[in-house]
Amino acid sequence: MPNTDVISFSRGAPSLDIVDTEGLKAAAVAALDADPAGTTGYGTSVGYPALREWIAAKHGVNPENVLVTNGSMQADAFLFDALVRPDSPVIVERPTYDRTLLGLRERRGRLHPVRLHADGIDVDELEALLKGGVRPTLAHIIPNFQNPAGVTLSGEKRTRLLQLAGEYDFTIFEDDPYLDIRFRGEQFPTMLEQDTEGRVVYASSFSKTVCPGLRTGYLVGPADLIARIAAAATNTYIAPNMFAQATIYQFAASGALDRSIATVKAALEERVDQLAASLRAHLPNAEFVVPDGGYFLWVDLGAGVDCAKVAAAAADEGVQVVKGTDFVLEGGESCLRLAYSAVKADRIDEGVRRLAKAVESARA
Amino acid sequence: MPNTDVISFSRGAPSLDIVDTEGLKAAAVAALDADPAGTTGYGTSVGYPALREWIAAKHGVNPENVLVTNGSMQADAFLFDALVRPDSPVIVERPTYDRTLLGLRERRGRLHPVRLHADGIDVDELEALLKGGVRPTLAHIIPNFQNPAGVTLSGEKRTRLLQLAGEYDFTIFEDDPYLDIRFRGEQFPTMLEQDTEGRVVYASSFSKTVCPGLRTGYLVGPADLIARIAAAATNTYIAPNMFAQATIYQFAASGALDRSIATVKAALEERVDQLAASLRAHLPNAEFVVPDGGYFLWVDLGAGVDCAKVAAAAADEGVQVVKGTDFVLEGGESCLRLAYSAVKADRIDEGVRRLAKAVESARA
Repeated sequence: MPNTDVISFSRGAPSLDIVDTEGLKAAAVAALDADPAGTTGYGTSVGYPALREWIAAKHGVNPENVLVTNGSMQADAFLFDALVRPDSPVIVERPTYDRTLLGLRERRGRLHPVRLHADGIDVDELEALLKGGVRPTLAHIIPNFQNPAGVTLSGEKRTRLLQLAGEYDFTIFEDDPYLDIRFRGEQFPTMLEQDTEGRVVYASSFSKTVCPGLRTGYLVGPADLIARIAAAATNTYIAPNMFAQATIYQFAASGALDRSIATVKAALEERVDQLAASLRAHLPNAEFVVPDGGYFLWVDLGAGVDCAKVAAAAADEGVQVVKGTDFVLEGGESCLRLAYSAVKADRIDEGVRRLAKAVESARA
Repeated sequence: MPNTDVISFSRGAPSLDIVDTEGLKAAAVAALDADPAGTTGYGTSVGYPALREWIAAKHGVNPENVLVTNGSMQADAFLFDALVRPDSPVIVERPTYDRTLLGLRERRGRLHPVRLHADGIDVDELEALLKGGVRPTLAHIIPNFQNPAGVTLSGEKRTRLLQLAGEYDFTIFEDDPYLDIRFRGEQFPTMLEQDTEGRVVYASSFSKTVCPGLRTGYLVGPADLIARIAAAATNTYIAPNMFAQATIYQFAASGALDRSIATVKAALEERVDQLAASLRAHLPNAEFVVPDGGYFLWVDLGAGVDCAKVAAAAADEGVQVVKGTDFVLEGGESCLRLAYSAVKADRIDEGVRRLAKAVESARA
């Protein structure tokens, strides 16, 4: 009989204990007090003005460069609709976020997966593709604490990617929801802030720093592209959620956001350290890079392990994981993605024990 | 010099005095207290479960028939994406909501506009089209207090539309955001509730009964179609705004929604009566049907009046209106749409005086 006391390493979502619900109540009330007309009115498709300005200031750009959306996946969808046509060549990381792959495949982009290392995308492999004649519309890069691999793009590679984008005339889609969830190590400059040629479109989200349920993400990019996407957004939904965006603005302005980020970072650092220790103890052959931030750890269980079988056996043991094959067009059979964002530290060792049993039984 | 103390009959939005911001504060706090995990978590693309159930109960359907979206225009977009292909014949009312026309044209539907009367769409003209060989995918109908015309589809015509949909195998898209804003007269049954064959997809919204800024609308329809649209919604934005939807659910459950609807109806009835009286006084040649509910009054200024000129002259006089040509593929030159939802009763007469001046100057 399956274990019903489930431990889930599957969903990239925070546990409720690290969401500041009291701060959100205060922020919602403050939004309706401070700006009742703006909070309850239609608004416009570029987003709630004060939040748009706050985001612009954070990234050192003008408000005209910012579009605030209903979650960053909606931002991705708008960007892909604007730039990706059937057969448009698109560079993706290997592995990468499964929903990005799906969004690009739905638009029939021609995907070119490029291997990911501990310091980010293999820029030599990318350059070889470019020299070989591939002319991408877009390169999708998750620079910090990549989903699913947990790795971070080095400073040097950021510079090189910008050079290649200039040389071969493509847009870098810097997809960066985990930026603020670094719990140790050096923060690299974003490619957005180093971009002098309008090559970078940047996306981020408040799902990892506030909570997912307010569904607020954003794009930063060249003003003409943002204006084009804003027109498409008007025709899709008139405007995104003003109530949620005004609440997030108040949450940020009051200082609750900084406190929330500190809470999330402290909890996730504890969780990832416990996860790494438990993996070393119970799955000594597993290979992984311990992330310096973010939500995800990618583990390779070694040749001959079938992650589909492991994931199924794990579910029977009462632990949920996502198989690596979901994040690549081919390969990934021996890998798993472990999201540690939703599992409290005192449950992680038990979760990994169950996973080790599942690996054992999948081998049998 | 243009008058800067502007009176706006242009936007279909409520004035702030008829939005219950205190009730919304209480509802947001209640949502975070009662269900912090559901309110702050990702949720799923069908919507916040308790609100979905509440909508299902309101319309006498199962939750599987309901999808709650980020505003009802997003619901329209999903439905059109699911059903309308390039060259799909689509019946629309003449005049109709400009954003609907735009959404259908963007998808390259072949539009067949059918004349609207004081009791709704001309079903004889529609039947003649059908007999003549037009085989629509969809007929878009705004049954109550139509935007822009303000008219309501009679009970008899609702029955006939359902018969025609059965006979000629098309879907009726019953687009009904104003249903609850009837301030006098008889409520007709929706086509949805009379539909026994799964011919009707129904859309509505909380923008007119709560406020627009929470951007919450919904679709009701056959379970298989709703499931198909839910899958597309997942791939677009994972889930709609749980925070807004949980807040609306608490607003409805607490009784605040019923009070809000009563407030809106009382205010809008006063406004439309004042508008009709002022039009009769200052523009005695204008023809219009006084709506029994909703937001809009459609006025025909008579042959020879150019509404584009009138709208421009009106803007100079300090009153905003929308020209009739925005709501039709051709024609509408002598017509205006007046939204009375945002203008308090004591400003309406002044607004119409300015409009009358503008009509005079446009004639000159």
